[in-house]
Amino acid sequence: MSKDKAKVRKILDAVKAAGRDSLTAPEGKLVCDAYGIAVPQEGVATSASDAQKLAASMGFPVVMKIVSPDILHKTEAGGVVVGVKDTQEATAAFDTIMANARNYKADAQIMGVQVQQMLKGGQEVIIGAVTDDSFGKLVAFGLGGVLVEVLKDITFRMAPATTEDAYSMLDGIQAAEMLKGARGSDPVDREALATLIVGVSELVSDFPEISEMDLNPVFASKDSAIAADVRIVVDFAQKMPRYRPSEEEVLRSMNRIMQPASLAVIGASSEEGKIGNSVMKNLINGGYQGNIYPIHPKADEILGYKAYRSVNDVPGEIDTAVFAIPAKFVAAALIECGEKKIAGAVLIPSGFAETGEHAMQEELVTIGRKYNIRLMGPNIYGFYYTPANLCATFCTAYDVKGSAALSSQSGGIGMAIIGFSRSAKMGVSAIVGLGNKSDIDEDDLLIFFEKDPNTKVIAQHCEDLKDGRAFAEVARRVSKKKPVIVLKAGRTSAGAKAASSHTGALAGNDKIYEDVFNQCGVIRARSLRDLLDFARGVPVLPTPKGENVVIITGAGGSGVLLSDACVDNNLQLMPMPADLDAAFRKFIPPFGAAGNPVDITGGEPPATYKNTVLLGLQDERIHALILGYWHTIVTPPMVFARIIVEARDEMRAQGIEKPIVASLAGDVQVEEAAQYLYEHGIPAYAYSTEIPVAVLGAKYKWARGAGLIR
Amino acid sequence: MSKDKAKVRKILDAVKAAGRDSLTAPEGKLVCDAYGIAVPQEGVATSASDAQKLAASMGFPVVMKIVSPDILHKTEAGGVVVGVKDTQEATAAFDTIMANARNYKADAQIMGVQVQQMLKGGQEVIIGAVTDDSFGKLVAFGLGGVLVEVLKDITFRMAPATTEDAYSMLDGIQAAEMLKGARGSDPVDREALATLIVGVSELVSDFPEISEMDLNPVFASKDSAIAADVRIVVDFAQKMPRYRPSEEEVLRSMNRIMQPASLAVIGASSEEGKIGNSVMKNLINGGYQGNIYPIHPKADEILGYKAYRSVNDVPGEIDTAVFAIPAKFVAAALIECGEKKIAGAVLIPSGFAETGEHAMQEELVTIGRKYNIRLMGPNIYGFYYTPANLCATFCTAYDVKGSAALSSQSGGIGMAIIGFSRSAKMGVSAIVGLGNKSDIDEDDLLIFFEKDPNTKVIAQHCEDLKDGRAFAEVARRVSKKKPVIVLKAGRTSAGAKAASSHTGALAGNDKIYEDVFNQCGVIRARSLRDLLDFARGVPVLPTPKGENVVIITGAGGSGVLLSDACVDNNLQLMPMPADLDAAFRKFIPPFGAAGNPVDITGGEPPATYKNTVLLGLQDERIHALILGYWHTIVTPPMVFARIIVEARDEMRAQGIEKPIVASLAGDVQVEEAAQYLYEHGIPAYAYSTEIPVAVLGAKYKWARGAGLIR
Repeated sequence: MSKDKAKVRKILDAVKAAGRDSLTAPEGKLVCDAYGIAVPQEGVATSASDAQKLAASMGFPVVMKIVSPDILHKTEAGGVVVGVKDTQEATAAFDTIMANARNYKADAQIMGVQVQQMLKGGQEVIIGAVTDDSFGKLVAFGLGGVLVEVLKDITFRMAPATTEDAYSMLDGIQAAEMLKGARGSDPVDREALATLIVGVSELVSDFPEISEMDLNPVFASKDSAIAADVRIVVDFAQKMPRYRPSEEEVLRSMNRIMQPASLAVIGASSEEGKIGNSVMKNLINGGYQGNIYPIHPKADEILGYKAYRSVNDVPGEIDTAVFAIPAKFVAAALIECGEKKIAGAVLIPSGFAETGEHAMQEELVTIGRKYNIRLMGPNIYGFYYTPANLCATFCTAYDVKGSAALSSQSGGIGMAIIGFSRSAKMGVSAIVGLGNKSDIDEDDLLIFFEKDPNTKVIAQHCEDLKDGRAFAEVARRVSKKKPVIVLKAGRTSAGAKAASSHTGALAGNDKIYEDVFNQCGVIRARSLRDLLDFARGVPVLPTPKGENVVIITGAGGSGVLLSDACVDNNLQLMPMPADLDAAFRKFIPPFGAAGNPVDITGGEPPATYKNTVLLGLQDERIHALILGYWHTIVTPPMVFARIIVEARDEMRAQGIEKPIVASLAGDVQVEEAAQYLYEHGIPAYAYSTEIPVAVLGAKYKWARGAGLIR
Repeated sequence: MSKDKAKVRKILDAVKAAGRDSLTAPEGKLVCDAYGIAVPQEGVATSASDAQKLAASMGFPVVMKIVSPDILHKTEAGGVVVGVKDTQEATAAFDTIMANARNYKADAQIMGVQVQQMLKGGQEVIIGAVTDDSFGKLVAFGLGGVLVEVLKDITFRMAPATTEDAYSMLDGIQAAEMLKGARGSDPVDREALATLIVGVSELVSDFPEISEMDLNPVFASKDSAIAADVRIVVDFAQKMPRYRPSEEEVLRSMNRIMQPASLAVIGASSEEGKIGNSVMKNLINGGYQGNIYPIHPKADEILGYKAYRSVNDVPGEIDTAVFAIPAKFVAAALIECGEKKIAGAVLIPSGFAETGEHAMQEELVTIGRKYNIRLMGPNIYGFYYTPANLCATFCTAYDVKGSAALSSQSGGIGMAIIGFSRSAKMGVSAIVGLGNKSDIDEDDLLIFFEKDPNTKVIAQHCEDLKDGRAFAEVARRVSKKKPVIVLKAGRTSAGAKAASSHTGALAGNDKIYEDVFNQCGVIRARSLRDLLDFARGVPVLPTPKGENVVIITGAGGSGVLLSDACVDNNLQLMPMPADLDAAFRKFIPPFGAAGNPVDITGGEPPATYKNTVLLGLQDERIHALILGYWHTIVTPPMVFARIIVEARDEMRAQGIEKPIVASLAGDVQVEEAAQYLYEHGIPAYAYSTEIPVAVLGAKYKWARGAGLIR
């Protein structure tokens, strides 16, 4: 795209000099011209042949208007002709307008006749840009009129947007069909629309002082998309850029914090019930192998470890300091940590911003910045990092090692994560409390977990993103490698209100979160259980190689519900090819249902489950299996579970790996079978047809976003 | 509403006589007139003063047109004037048209000048009616154009619709705001629109031969709603009415079947592993106190009970016969049951319609009809009725008595119901398998459970409703007394496809199910887990007396998610009055959050939970409580659980009952606390903020539908 930045710079400078906060229509048009954003073409003709040429160059029909400083009421003067259809009409219109004008005011100074491209009806759309506190510049797209205003059918992307982003916006509105030529109209020129979207997004990115921009309406027809009206709002006030260490620095600090060789516990205590005592015990009992240095004003030894008055008294290097002292003592101790060149402070204490003590929190941030210590919290439970057997928290120890890295903004949600994980035997690499997020944020965690070989999936609960743009930029890259799952609380206005009373965070427009998460390949969990189930199931599943999903079920009723769930989770049920249908039929009773779901019918022996599953794994056209089990005496739950794991293992030995999930309908014994399947890499749920399919859906969503399936 | 049935009858008779399947525009207009459905007014004037009077009576503007068999091209003849604005213009227009006509064709026969009401722009809407295979006549409403065609923004009600139904349709579309005067336009005349909807719904109900009807477009303005175009399609073919016994008969039979004094097991067996053996054991071990008569071709005694060759050999009366014999023997045994005047046959055997053996199933239906035996199944697991200690199934016995009556069309889903119920210790009154639904259907169960004092909530899984109208009519009445929860499988087109391959049932349009369920006060479960959680929780909760919900939470983070869930479940967070806010603040730390959620903050002792919950129960402005618990050492899970039950009991002793649900965030001990709370009447969930709120939402939905809260 051709961009004339200098031209835009000059116009904005003039606007700034004039102390204005918006551009005039002609200025807006010039800015658009400079960025290849199509606006109606126009020119001034001083002769009939001029008018002919101009009109021909921009394409008929055109509107022609007298240009004269002495004629204000052009229509009254007979100085306007609309709908000029060809060169002959253009000549006639020119002559008529000139004659009328002279008739109207004989001594009028006439500059000529303006010839302006006339916009064809087509589809009215809106393209705009806004500046969001968290995500910065965003470009927006929607259909004009009712659809945007009443149904809020609009979609956002971070600016600058790529051409691919732009096309995804055209497909990303509810009424997308309208652009494809619904109701007998022509499909719109998608390329032209995408060019406008990209142009607007680049313009506002190149010139941050453009705070808002509207092209409304844009007329999109089958061969063009032209902005009939342009509105540009500017804000020249300087924004303080948020402090961000470089990614290398972040990684260096986070590596030391999360995998410390030495760790100090400031406020360590021998006294049962104290937080500093719980932290010490968890470190020791958790099996942490690094050095533990209790810091205490008086004690010489705590739980068998030599205690020190200050971190400065500790002989060797310290990577991480866990704080378990009252809020008012934190700042002084943090300075000592700074002097000791500790990489990070885990600030368990509460009594900062969350209780209105903003200044006290600000003080910590200033100290942290000065000494280059990263702060986790304050107001947190601490963190777990299981590969290092590290339980730097006052909560009970957690030791089921695995590959899910979870974090929460809220302590309560953190506790729910711990409880669920333990109950479900979910393997985790880390559980991190972020609390007030005075410094360490979701994107710092992403940067660490991206490189962490022990982590395969990253699941985060958050109420706000203090720097949505930084998060999005990192998430966009990380999600290409590892699934990033986010539960954004405060989705609804009631939730957002509660969020702001809780953390003082300004909750963003939820639609913006939704779209930016999609743009970055982030999987959005709709509920706490979704977050937990996805974190548990997604890393367990192999990545599917294509979109063809097949349901194999013993219970026809489950098949129906599983099919519903596939649609809800955007999974494609493969239309069953005739040869494959015949192959499945060999294993199932004659009255078993054809097609997909494959209904093997109830009362079948283990061999039928196994044979059909083996076939499903072997056939290359199938990319994922959803199993519906029905508890019978012929194939009891654990027999089913073992046979499925066997089938999967046989195929794995031949190099075949496909995601399998299972729904188990039956008496309580199916719970044990589901747990067995899960532990063997097959996410399985008792009494639910929805959850296993949602887990598979999350895996697919990630794989699509990461470009692993097309 | 004035209805001229005779006039419509006459027109339809003429259409039938002519062998046509649709009405002409003038016929449609006459039909509309007969039912007070507004169409543009018109009349023929033979003088200017006539024209004036006519125009004035219908209101300006009007369109005036020449009426002459000799002038076909009216416009060409100068015979049309549009936009006639007042009486003066009407006179002029009449004179002009007449003069032009004579000019055009001097010898033309002129009948006069047609004066027709000109429709004002306003909002274009569509009102229509369709005939659904299951639900019969339905009336539909939507906005014209894009919204109906592209976004499918349309809503249905069973016809005839009440005025209240009609208003709910105006509010029931996504773009409802458009009718209220969005974008600076006038709000439409709701009364006029409702009149049209009711009129159409009554017309199609009174004349079943009207199979489809469209008023499209209807122009709705601020003071009228007029159908510009009417299309009526007819189908005179006679429909076989479905056989339906009277409700008294249904109830008489169902009472005998579900609570039999004597029961025969046809195919009873001493042989371990046989279905007839399992059924016998379940009856005996389940503690059924009635007479059990094993029927067996040879045995004299089975499991200690005297056996008979045929039911006809049994001395006393038999209410219910449970079949455990192969499909091919069923018909003969069923005839014997008929001779014995048995009320119902529980047809466990499979091998009928579900395996393509439609004729065999039809034979059973014919026998059942002949002898007045009601048939449950075939192809089912049987049924449980716990108040009678009756386990008439081959599945394992179920004995947790309670008030939820569940049923399933599919055996697999039935097994999931049994497993979940047992695992969650859900008290049930009945679990019934409906299978192929050759006879006994969801509405038969509704009729029985409506009167059953042991049942407080009815939860049904179904894939189709063979007679949706019968179901809806019964459900509409029953749901006023007891919550009716339905999981309709085959919601999506993929699910519906699986449903039809499973049972051969034609799955209805899901939007129709959605709207009819709403119209009947049926709570729709979106998933199997929802069905189960609602069945478990809804009967446990007292009925709320108003819409004011308050969240009390120890975890701010849970508060945010609980608020989100309130919005998702259509619950109203009460804006906190200043005095009540102050009253709550007395119990919570100064940094606890104001308003609703009441954030008591983490780390508070049991007394804070108790005091705030007591206040929430005492204050009359609050109607329901949602609790967010955060596991801490200060208030461990079971301490929290006991204190809440205590608080509830104290208030109950004072006659105060409000629904309370709880979300528990914490380590695994919260699972025990949640179970304790649930067993004490407080639906509580570990690791989930969504489910408890969804359960409360289901209770509210029912209470609103039953008119218990406004």
